[in-house]
Amino acid sequence: MEAMKAVILYSGGLDSMTLLGVANSMGFTELLTIGFDYGQPHDHCRLPTDAVKKRHGIIESVLCPTPLLGPACSLVSEDVDVPKRQDPRAPGVPNTWVPARNLVFLSHAANYAAAKDATDIFIGVNQLDFSGYPDCRSGFISAVELAMRTGVSVDFKIHTPLIQMKKTEIIELGLSLGVDYSETQSCYDPMTSGESCGECDSCQLRLEAFVMLGYEDPIHYVTS
Amino acid sequence: MEAMKAVILYSGGLDSMTLLGVANSMGFTELLTIGFDYGQPHDHCRLPTDAVKKRHGIIESVLCPTPLLGPACSLVSEDVDVPKRQDPRAPGVPNTWVPARNLVFLSHAANYAAAKDATDIFIGVNQLDFSGYPDCRSGFISAVELAMRTGVSVDFKIHTPLIQMKKTEIIELGLSLGVDYSETQSCYDPMTSGESCGECDSCQLRLEAFVMLGYEDPIHYVTS
Repeated sequence: MEAMKAVILYSGGLDSMTLLGVANSMGFTELLTIGFDYGQPHDHCRLPTDAVKKRHGIIESVLCPTPLLGPACSLVSEDVDVPKRQDPRAPGVPNTWVPARNLVFLSHAANYAAAKDATDIFIGVNQLDFSGYPDCRSGFISAVELAMRTGVSVDFKIHTPLIQMKKTEIIELGLSLGVDYSETQSCYDPMTSGESCGECDSCQLRLEAFVMLGYEDPIHYVTS
Repeated sequence: MEAMKAVILYSGGLDSMTLLGVANSMGFTELLTIGFDYGQPHDHCRLPTDAVKKRHGIIESVLCPTPLLGPACSLVSEDVDVPKRQDPRAPGVPNTWVPARNLVFLSHAANYAAAKDATDIFIGVNQLDFSGYPDCRSGFISAVELAMRTGVSVDFKIHTPLIQMKKTEIIELGLSLGVDYSETQSCYDPMTSGESCGECDSCQLRLEAFVMLGYEDPIHYVTS
């Protein structure tokens, strides 16, 4: 039987690490990860470590430079600060949003998958925790899937197993699948020493979820 | 009255030069061009010259590196030759096709347009001369437009004024709009001296069109 291959959009964060376990549990034994460098400050671990590769059957990992612009976007503009200690669920689109980012990522993933003869693509978007990002919703994913299929003439399937999950559910799922969260980082604005800030939206959502579950987050925070 | 702004996908070829004239004729007086570097051999003039900028009201030009892969693709693989003297209208997808290329280009254009507060995007796809490329057809363009609108929450419009035109019609349109084709190059595999090969699909289609119109192609070919 031929090995089942899938392309995983991998940022080194909690969600994309969970994706690896989910893809494995669905029978995908050969994973190819694609990460993106768009000048974001959280350039920690977009390439999986050897331990992660071995655990999840990753046969290839690429890092793709994708210059992206954002007006008043704190992730790609040096003039705008990453917000700290704000309510991560406040209404509206936060200033960490990079317009068309997931569209650019999925387009490159389609090119990569076509080149590697893979049709299954996993992305860790989540419309509950990040409802302010329009490109994390299922309507957008369906539209991109159609564009990919039409434009490449390949029957691509975009998997979004985390899209309806709360952060606590994602962590529980990952732990049940043997995912090691000590090798992840979610911070938008980590210290040069590698520690997470603990105060940006992404750190707050992650820490809050671990507290709710009664587990200790295995990574290091500067404020802890 | 506010100036009408548009983003033009610009490769330096005949079609994208024609787009500049068409956009101007539709009232777009401030053009922003975006070109792409994906390791293709035809890296001639993706940034417009000063004369072109002045003629068409180009206020900004960017060149975006977009690493793309292609299995057995002659434009991004050194192991595969660009086909010469073949029938450019032969059925099937030619080996110059890079999967998801226009999807990647339009995704970056959406990011650029959003950053520059523009909603109109022009791309010179043509489904008659390049019917072998699935990402040059109107069904694909509609799907990407939907994905862009859904993912960025902006009412983008992708303009494809050349999509149903023959190459002869494109040239006649451009000439009627004052486009200067001496500043274009269409070759997939130009000489290091800058001359076009005259034998690849792209050169053949272009030369054939000029001959049919009874005009002289103003650029230099190595075989002429």
